[in-house]
Amino acid sequence: MNGVEITKLDMMQTPGGDVMHGLKSIDSSFVGFGEAYFSIIDHQSIKGWKRHKRMTLYLIVPTGSVKFVIHDDRIESSSYGEFKVVELSRDNYNRLTISPMLWLGFQGIGKEENIVLNVASIPHDPEEVDKKDVEEFNFCW
Amino acid sequence: MNGVEITKLDMMQTPGGDVMHGLKSIDSSFVGFGEAYFSIIDHQSIKGWKRHKRMTLYLIVPTGSVKFVIHDDRIESSSYGEFKVVELSRDNYNRLTISPMLWLGFQGIGKEENIVLNVASIPHDPEEVDKKDVEEFNFCW
Repeated sequence: MNGVEITKLDMMQTPGGDVMHGLKSIDSSFVGFGEAYFSIIDHQSIKGWKRHKRMTLYLIVPTGSVKFVIHDDRIESSSYGEFKVVELSRDNYNRLTISPMLWLGFQGIGKEENIVLNVASIPHDPEEVDKKDVEEFNFCW
Repeated sequence: MNGVEITKLDMMQTPGGDVMHGLKSIDSSFVGFGEAYFSIIDHQSIKGWKRHKRMTLYLIVPTGSVKFVIHDDRIESSSYGEFKVVELSRDNYNRLTISPMLWLGFQGIGKEENIVLNVASIPHDPEEVDKKDVEEFNFCW
């Protein structure tokens, strides 16, 4: 999908516990740092839809398993009308980069705790966020 | 301790799972973004000591409980010779900011998984890290 990037991240075994990469300022997809925060998503719960007008999202799942669904309704986009589904976990340890103007929803898949780290390109600003109820797009969770 | 800051972080209850703050670029203690990565620390395991010459560390514990010990051996410092102990968890949800040139060790306290997020001010660079074996400072873990 136009504006979505999936990047394999390193997990390194070290004595006492693994080290797991997230995002570096020297990564090619990095556009800026505004805020790092965690979202917990309960088993089978869905958060969405949200669209950020200016924020690029860098999403990493250190714990549990989370299904992300990205919807592109930009009329001029080559992926107009598409839904893209990406499930992240420690078994599929990737970073999901989402450009502004795409709609995002996500669902907790793991039965124990599911945690998303978002390293966002700008600090939280309610003015730049659009929201829709989860049933407003025709996606079958 | 001179060069150590402890900052209360917000945890917000939202439908589907909590949101937990970490670090914002507009926070007064923010000096730059270089890399975000996770360190897992097994129950009772100790990682340390390490001293960063240029990196400021912003440490957050989203899962489990971790004991951090900071040692100041800077001869000119007002806290020269001190050890500072800080235990972070979701019950004591704070960010720990550690300036360069302080020694850090940390230990997993929780019996289940313990996770540290470091939002570091510069990307990892082995040239700027000094290491000592855990028994080299006279601290009783």
